Amino acid sequence: MSTRDRHAERPRYMRCLRKTEPEPGFHLEQATKPVPLRGEVLIRVTSAAICGTDVHIYQWDEWSANRIKPPTIIGHEFVGVVEQLGQGVTQPLEVGQRVSAEGHICCGTCYYCRTGKAHLCQSVEIIGVDRDGCFADWISMPAGNVWPIHADIPDRWASVMDPLGNAMHTVASADVAGASVLCVGAGPIGLFSVPIAKARGASRVIVSEPNAYRRGLAEAVGADLVLDPTTGDLEAAVMEVTRGMGVDVILEMSGHPGAFRQALRLARLAGTMVLLGIPSREFAIDWAEEVIFKALTLVGVNGRRMFETWYQTEEFLLTHGPSIEPVLTHTMPMEDFDTAFRYLTSGRAGKIILDFGG
Amino acid sequence: MSTRDRHAERPRYMRCLRKTEPEPGFHLEQATKPVPLRGEVLIRVTSAAICGTDVHIYQWDEWSANRIKPPTIIGHEFVGVVEQLGQGVTQPLEVGQRVSAEGHICCGTCYYCRTGKAHLCQSVEIIGVDRDGCFADWISMPAGNVWPIHADIPDRWASVMDPLGNAMHTVASADVAGASVLCVGAGPIGLFSVPIAKARGASRVIVSEPNAYRRGLAEAVGADLVLDPTTGDLEAAVMEVTRGMGVDVILEMSGHPGAFRQALRLARLAGTMVLLGIPSREFAIDWAEEVIFKALTLVGVNGRRMFETWYQTEEFLLTHGPSIEPVLTHTMPMEDFDTAFRYLTSGRAGKIILDFGG
Amino acid sequence: MSTRDRHAERPRYMRCLRKTEPEPGFHLEQATKPVPLRGEVLIRVTSAAICGTDVHIYQWDEWSANRIKPPTIIGHEFVGVVEQLGQGVTQPLEVGQRVSAEGHICCGTCYYCRTGKAHLCQSVEIIGVDRDGCFADWISMPAGNVWPIHADIPDRWASVMDPLGNAMHTVASADVAGASVLCVGAGPIGLFSVPIAKARGASRVIVSEPNAYRRGLAEAVGADLVLDPTTGDLEAAVMEVTRGMGVDVILEMSGHPGAFRQALRLARLAGTMVLLGIPSREFAIDWAEEVIFKALTLVGVNGRRMFETWYQTEEFLLTHGPSIEPVLTHTMPMEDFDTAFRYLTSGRAGKIILDFGG
Amino acid sequence: MSTRDRHAERPRYMRCLRKTEPEPGFHLEQATKPVPLRGEVLIRVTSAAICGTDVHIYQWDEWSANRIKPPTIIGHEFVGVVEQLGQGVTQPLEVGQRVSAEGHICCGTCYYCRTGKAHLCQSVEIIGVDRDGCFADWISMPAGNVWPIHADIPDRWASVMDPLGNAMHTVASADVAGASVLCVGAGPIGLFSVPIAKARGASRVIVSEPNAYRRGLAEAVGADLVLDPTTGDLEAAVMEVTRGMGVDVILEMSGHPGAFRQALRLARLAGTMVLLGIPSREFAIDWAEEVIFKALTLVGVNGRRMFETWYQTEEFLLTHGPSIEPVLTHTMPMEDFDTAFRYLTSGRAGKIILDFGG
Repeated sequence: MSTRDRHAERPRYMRCLRKTEPEPGFHLEQATKPVPLRGEVLIRVTSAAICGTDVHIYQWDEWSANRIKPPTIIGHEFVGVVEQLGQGVTQPLEVGQRVSAEGHICCGTCYYCRTGKAHLCQSVEIIGVDRDGCFADWISMPAGNVWPIHADIPDRWASVMDPLGNAMHTVASADVAGASVLCVGAGPIGLFSVPIAKARGASRVIVSEPNAYRRGLAEAVGADLVLDPTTGDLEAAVMEVTRGMGVDVILEMSGHPGAFRQALRLARLAGTMVLLGIPSREFAIDWAEEVIFKALTLVGVNGRRMFETWYQTEEFLLTHGPSIEPVLTHTMPMEDFDTAFRYLTSGRAGKIILDFGG
Repeated sequence: MSTRDRHAERPRYMRCLRKTEPEPGFHLEQATKPVPLRGEVLIRVTSAAICGTDVHIYQWDEWSANRIKPPTIIGHEFVGVVEQLGQGVTQPLEVGQRVSAEGHICCGTCYYCRTGKAHLCQSVEIIGVDRDGCFADWISMPAGNVWPIHADIPDRWASVMDPLGNAMHTVASADVAGASVLCVGAGPIGLFSVPIAKARGASRVIVSEPNAYRRGLAEAVGADLVLDPTTGDLEAAVMEVTRGMGVDVILEMSGHPGAFRQALRLARLAGTMVLLGIPSREFAIDWAEEVIFKALTLVGVNGRRMFETWYQTEEFLLTHGPSIEPVLTHTMPMEDFDTAFRYLTSGRAGKIILDFGG
Repeated sequence: MSTRDRHAERPRYMRCLRKTEPEPGFHLEQATKPVPLRGEVLIRVTSAAICGTDVHIYQWDEWSANRIKPPTIIGHEFVGVVEQLGQGVTQPLEVGQRVSAEGHICCGTCYYCRTGKAHLCQSVEIIGVDRDGCFADWISMPAGNVWPIHADIPDRWASVMDPLGNAMHTVASADVAGASVLCVGAGPIGLFSVPIAKARGASRVIVSEPNAYRRGLAEAVGADLVLDPTTGDLEAAVMEVTRGMGVDVILEMSGHPGAFRQALRLARLAGTMVLLGIPSREFAIDWAEEVIFKALTLVGVNGRRMFETWYQTEEFLLTHGPSIEPVLTHTMPMEDFDTAFRYLTSGRAGKIILDFGG
Repeated sequence: MSTRDRHAERPRYMRCLRKTEPEPGFHLEQATKPVPLRGEVLIRVTSAAICGTDVHIYQWDEWSANRIKPPTIIGHEFVGVVEQLGQGVTQPLEVGQRVSAEGHICCGTCYYCRTGKAHLCQSVEIIGVDRDGCFADWISMPAGNVWPIHADIPDRWASVMDPLGNAMHTVASADVAGASVLCVGAGPIGLFSVPIAKARGASRVIVSEPNAYRRGLAEAVGADLVLDPTTGDLEAAVMEVTRGMGVDVILEMSGHPGAFRQALRLARLAGTMVLLGIPSREFAIDWAEEVIFKALTLVGVNGRRMFETWYQTEEFLLTHGPSIEPVLTHTMPMEDFDTAFRYLTSGRAGKIILDFGG
């Protein structure tokens, strides 16, 4: 084959889901296929998963309107195949290798980046938010962000290593070994945190979730007790399970003020409450009774550790991977993205994976 | 000497400061001298110090009205001399020995008591609150609560080992070695926490306090920077000292909502905020921006550890004792208690020690 | 019934296993039934388990000859029923209640006792070692040492809460959540540590043990990989499982110098090695290559925490109790103790429970 | 000025201290001035300090003979001025800026590098050992290794940030706040650890050192007690200071088997021993009595954290810098290196700084 023929074969355009205007919705468009810069790796996306953040961007809420500068290709959770290594890539990566990637592209030079806390870098660029993302046939990523996928981990699981990492980082921020755990909210990250907490030694995991569909998923991923805080007596049930002590660890995954305040009352003295769910507004708590006199520890959690969390998540998938299957409720062709977002906003889906036909 | 003579010599009554009615103020009264029960130690009080809690009880605020059942002798911070050992005391204590005591009398049988967290015992009785206290010529204490005073620690310092312990437990709840520390509020415990934080390795201690008299005390105990949050630009000053990073550790000693919220903004990413000051009401914070995105840890602190904190405080006094002297602003005869409370409520005193003439 | 009759009914003597002379073996003898002193609880023993320490005392090794002062009733692992409360018992205990007990009777007044580390008390008296033990129909214990048995925990499991506690304290001394763990030695405590490590989140547990019978037990309690260090290539196998990294955590349960040194070579950089097995002599290691350059942490473990470990063990039994069954290989009448010790010294038993017919 | 002139001006050669043959000694030679590769920074060395490792290489001991491949320019502790930035440097560095550098050049892609433990990278290249070092007029370093020097830190202190970092990492590996500390060995890193331990809150620092000159330096840097283990009764003295408890923390800086074993005996129960000194051979300890029954923790320490330790060291120098001055006993022109090594091998120097006349 001549050089010309090979060039002729190479696609120069690709499909993508793009926020084109400052308004709700995405557009399925044609974009120029990216070329890997020095130190970057070009990846052909095979599957990508939809995050709650993508739903916010789709809906164009206040946060999105302030943060996103259209036009931007959306998406940050994916798995794909290495197609080309840019110049100067020193990482042990090969063309044809299956990979995912950390979507936070950090400066590498600030205090946080230099002390093992790159997830707190204040100059971060997030793919699918601050620059083009992975809801496209190709994405080019800095080689240092690329994560090789172990041969025993299927694409389905690999496509959600990012949100699994949020759940892992949250659970790992408390000592759950032998502990009773209350998970507040059963969105995808809350659901992932259930088998992760069990795998890390939680003796009992209780889930509080008002949505019946999600409660069903919580049961399917192995929660010991699943409760509807709007109708049942959550507090009585938790106190019975914990012999009146309250739970050792709370995983706050909802960001909901009422659920947060209720959970506080259910914490044991000297317990730990880890906060991942993002409240949309300020709200008050009874600091004296619920935090100080109880000697509670509250831990804010942001992102996932690069790359401690990825190693932990990989080991979890290798030893407990099937436990996440109930969360992965739908897989659809990427073209059906509007359907996917409709399912998600109606609360009738766990995690939806978009198939890019790779 | 006949039995009658010996009895004649022994005092059967003593002076005490008592809350006699559910109303403001204390009364200097005569009370029956206590007799040590089995396992108790009778202590002749030589000096006692006034706590902020005593001020609340004196003023008869809402908390006091709910908790105190008059008549009750007040006071829980003291030093004295062992006068008599009750039956069955196995502790290595001797008549004539100088002692202080932990004022939390715990059940010894609950989960918290059996796991080294007796300071969280939910069946606790506090002297001077739930039972008669130390503002009296004698007090009888369970031997397990008694703390022998090292020969190199003078009575002045020994009389405040209880609130020093609160400060120690608060500071020790964060890792301050090499850290920048912001102490919010310069009441006695806040003031004690300054030399304690320095002694435990804080590289810089900043104090925020609106009361000018207390700011003077903060400077006297060695704060590196003392600021008035009502007039100066605390935030600019903190950011300058910390090169724009914010402080590593916040010691919240004020319980004041505005000060708490301001401090949150001054915390470094992944920093720690320790909460000892007790807010009198619920209040809101921006959980998303100030705790979750910043990956902050908030630690509620209650009491002091029995007796880890007492050992730490003893070692602190042996090596850095003179550093607390500026906080001990007044010593007065116990009869002048009304004057003492007037000084305290007017914010013109640090710690006041009542002399019992022992 | 007259007083005389009641006295007539009460047994005044009991069976016991006693070391009567400084020589090998125990004697089944009659002893005076103990009377509970003030603060003590009289317990009718129903089952007791044999510890490796009892085997040493039976064999009368050098340690035993130095420590034990015959005549002494042996035994410290047991379950029984409360028969009588001595005067002054404040614990919530009732006649008829099933209980076990912590066998370390501590002074309660030393630095370690006062700081939540009573397991390190240097004035400790151990039942069955320093004073009469539980291989008897009755034992009287300080009420503070008594541990009530949860209704859902059968006597079989309750009788081994002491050695389960050693295993729990050992495993809990490292962070095993998500970790690869190598357990060196499959005696009863090593065996117990396998399901405990799994329950606390270990992702893989490898056991190294030369005795084939014990390797069978290790498989039965759920080890992921069981190896014979004398014939197989342990190092190659461990490196394969850990992808060449070495294990995160080593539980050294053997006290065997060769096994200890081999395990060191299998530790990951920055890994943790917890030491419970007691070497009978000094031995050398390569500190530079194996500890310092590898940034290893070695943690000596002694006893079990009072009573943090007991709570942890109870929760483990409530959630994973059946996992220990394979270790409880034999139950025999207490009279057959010589048979039991013969089984144990021949390495053909796991844990043996003596039935006291209660 | 013409291009030719500019080239004519630029030096193409430089002085260096080089190990030229596999034999003792260094040679002062002329070497080609390095050219910064992509991502590197060319630094003009102004001062460099001599490490114990350099002494080993000078003497050509067994370790050196196995590791060093002559010809190699020696040296890894230095301060200098940025002269030129190579292509692709993204770090905020400027020509003319004062800098030091971390001498461990890591792969950036292994498990340790990706999880904040680059100091344990197993593909590390160390300057002055595995590749040319800093005992030269210029050195070119990867920009990610370069550490900008704060304006308030003089060159003298900046030139020893590497060994100060070893001391910092060692001290920070234990919790010394309020603790009694025994530092075993008063070589430069041991000496640096004294003011660092004090600054991090150690209540008392005891130094054990047989060399009288070094004991003098230990006193000068603020040790509370300095003892000669060969003549005085170290054990009695330590027990007196610690009221018979033993020390909380041991910093083992000597690598000497006898000193190590003696220190073990002086550790408190549940104490911590941090190991930095590198023993030249295997040696035995009494694991049962000194580690397991005492519940001791031994922590191997390697290098310094990139770059957590550098930030900690910078903050230490900004707040306690003058405290290290007594350790910096000599400064000499680089040409007098033979004199410097003679001083060092005779044990009559602390840290020696070589002046490169920059």
